[in-house]
Amino acid sequence: MIASHYEKMLQGKSVIRELSEFATARGKEIGYENVFDYSLGNPSVPVPEAVTETMIKLLREKNPMELHGYSPSLGIPSVREKVAKSLSQRFGIPYEAEHIFMTSGAAGAIAHALRAVTEPGDEVLTFAPCFSEYVPYVNGTGARLKVVPANTETFQINFEAFEEMLSEKTAAVLINTPNNPSGVVYSTATIQKLAEILTKKAGEYGREIYIISDEPYREILFEGVDAPCVAAHYGNTLMCYSFSKSLSFPGERIGYVAVGPACRDAVKIIQMCGQISRETGHNCPASLIQLAVAEHLDLTSDLSVYETNKNILYRELTQLGFTCTEPGGTFYIFPKALEEDAKIFCEKGRKYDLIMVPGDGFGCPGYFRMAYCIDTEKVERSLAALRRFVETEYPNRK
Amino acid sequence: MIASHYEKMLQGKSVIRELSEFATARGKEIGYENVFDYSLGNPSVPVPEAVTETMIKLLREKNPMELHGYSPSLGIPSVREKVAKSLSQRFGIPYEAEHIFMTSGAAGAIAHALRAVTEPGDEVLTFAPCFSEYVPYVNGTGARLKVVPANTETFQINFEAFEEMLSEKTAAVLINTPNNPSGVVYSTATIQKLAEILTKKAGEYGREIYIISDEPYREILFEGVDAPCVAAHYGNTLMCYSFSKSLSFPGERIGYVAVGPACRDAVKIIQMCGQISRETGHNCPASLIQLAVAEHLDLTSDLSVYETNKNILYRELTQLGFTCTEPGGTFYIFPKALEEDAKIFCEKGRKYDLIMVPGDGFGCPGYFRMAYCIDTEKVERSLAALRRFVETEYPNRK
Repeated sequence: MIASHYEKMLQGKSVIRELSEFATARGKEIGYENVFDYSLGNPSVPVPEAVTETMIKLLREKNPMELHGYSPSLGIPSVREKVAKSLSQRFGIPYEAEHIFMTSGAAGAIAHALRAVTEPGDEVLTFAPCFSEYVPYVNGTGARLKVVPANTETFQINFEAFEEMLSEKTAAVLINTPNNPSGVVYSTATIQKLAEILTKKAGEYGREIYIISDEPYREILFEGVDAPCVAAHYGNTLMCYSFSKSLSFPGERIGYVAVGPACRDAVKIIQMCGQISRETGHNCPASLIQLAVAEHLDLTSDLSVYETNKNILYRELTQLGFTCTEPGGTFYIFPKALEEDAKIFCEKGRKYDLIMVPGDGFGCPGYFRMAYCIDTEKVERSLAALRRFVETEYPNRK
Repeated sequence: MIASHYEKMLQGKSVIRELSEFATARGKEIGYENVFDYSLGNPSVPVPEAVTETMIKLLREKNPMELHGYSPSLGIPSVREKVAKSLSQRFGIPYEAEHIFMTSGAAGAIAHALRAVTEPGDEVLTFAPCFSEYVPYVNGTGARLKVVPANTETFQINFEAFEEMLSEKTAAVLINTPNNPSGVVYSTATIQKLAEILTKKAGEYGREIYIISDEPYREILFEGVDAPCVAAHYGNTLMCYSFSKSLSFPGERIGYVAVGPACRDAVKIIQMCGQISRETGHNCPASLIQLAVAEHLDLTSDLSVYETNKNILYRELTQLGFTCTEPGGTFYIFPKALEEDAKIFCEKGRKYDLIMVPGDGFGCPGYFRMAYCIDTEKVERSLAALRRFVETEYPNRK
């Protein structure tokens, strides 16, 4: 008499996990350094030393009862204050501590934000290509996720399809910029148009439509890229942040929800997040981790390797004839496969020890994702394999 | 258009929080050292130094990419292995890593365990007096919590009422021993009888009935107390553990679910916990914290102060004429109030700067909880206030 719903979920196969297992197994045969594993979005640079030193200092100097004591369900007050202050200085939005809810990474943030602003039967719209885990996040709330088809010209928003899919059931729009898997950053024009449409439709429908803005890649931006703050353009925004990528801290599970002060019921939404936690058993992120990141809110790891890798790969891919939108941030690139079925394309790549993820799982068949959060030296070594793969398997590509 | 369900939950008042706020406010007037705050179940002894040293060593010596990297959704494999080994050595039950799911404390553990073995519409039984947060944990699953009335003679199980309330809808029985708030430890006879009844009824109903065993106070046991391992007496047991109390580590949010190897679908239940996390955004506890506790599974803080405090309070309370079952563990005691309404009783206590929690919120009106996880010196100083309170307000008690 186990829960049938979760038992069924076990039958779903994770393509990325399978690929990663293949890469590990292949690595045992030929040495992992010879497997060009572009499958996983795991940071490849260390946490800044200052963060490590802060943790050691806290452990050495702070009263252990206080350091390891219960955090209130919304987060440690001093941490919430510091997050609010940092955001308000940076984005010019008057966040206060009462607008901040500390979470176990972006997953915790999105799961809470969704529960706070949806009712069972509501719809949540998101845009392909998108992170596959959005499906369980939304399913868990009783609402339904609808994926707006990609604009594969630019990987900005396909507004035509979006407007057709908006309805009176739309409770929220879940966006991710800089985007996993495309690497594209939504432009100011895109965000402005999105805000205009939502304001108009919310008026028509007589309901709020919230933007849930998933921003774990916010700090990984490349030169000259226009990267607007979503919350500055749309009041009803729930910003979901994670330190996983910016501080190379994914295992420590730390992030937050910041509800725009102009958001309707802003403070109440944060308080409701505390109630949601009571049902899911989320509680807070670890106290030590909360206190450590609060000292380094404006610091990041050295993220420059990602731009270096992007430049190398983008140049090579376009030279090889791939159709590819240049990423503006993240550590992903999302070219068009050289045959219709990207699954077959990626399967063939394995023969050359190239591990790439078909776009199907991101709601965008025919494309594939490469996660270039690996050493630059390995990216460079992978180019010969990439050329050999393309020239052998697709000699007649144009 | 915020979620009405969570908005409604905001209206619920937390008696404990109110009391704690009163204690803080009163502390500002007369000095917190003069407020006899027995309201909160917060450990009052520090984490063992060895745990602190392990964390510093990990931070100093371990590769930061590995240390802070993503943990698999079920927990870090080496940590799961160590937990299984420690449990199997201690309780003689052949746990393996595949039976362990690492969680954010007991809250995360119980929330996952409940979701894994219930379907919407099922019933979960628990026994008064019980932790008030069981209500949202169960509500969040779509099942319904039914509280079996207390056996106030002994605070063991009221089997008569229990058997009447068991039905074909019963999916799980949620127990907590050593118990918050009574401090009582279920005896071997109690656990054996519970197991017998469940085995018989499960056969009759043709379904599994799981025990979800909430064991955060497992290590706080007093001299000479018979404290059976629940899982050793009933195969279908999901043990939910937290290091919050044993290591004085509540803010670090670390615990686990251990599913008995004899449990039907044991391994599948653990795998399903990973699927449940995908919906709730729970993910894993922090990597650093997982790795730290894994080195100290058989260590506890110096917990002796709790027994010292229990002895002082139990002696004084019985001398003053309270009806009171002697606690066998935890840092709680749960005497009968000196008037019918324990809320009024506790309200009167405030005049003497005694902060106690009425039993109503624990499903046991007429009793009150004192959490004696405070310095012994303060417990001793509180006795005069307690005597003054009782002798002034209840001069005619027998």
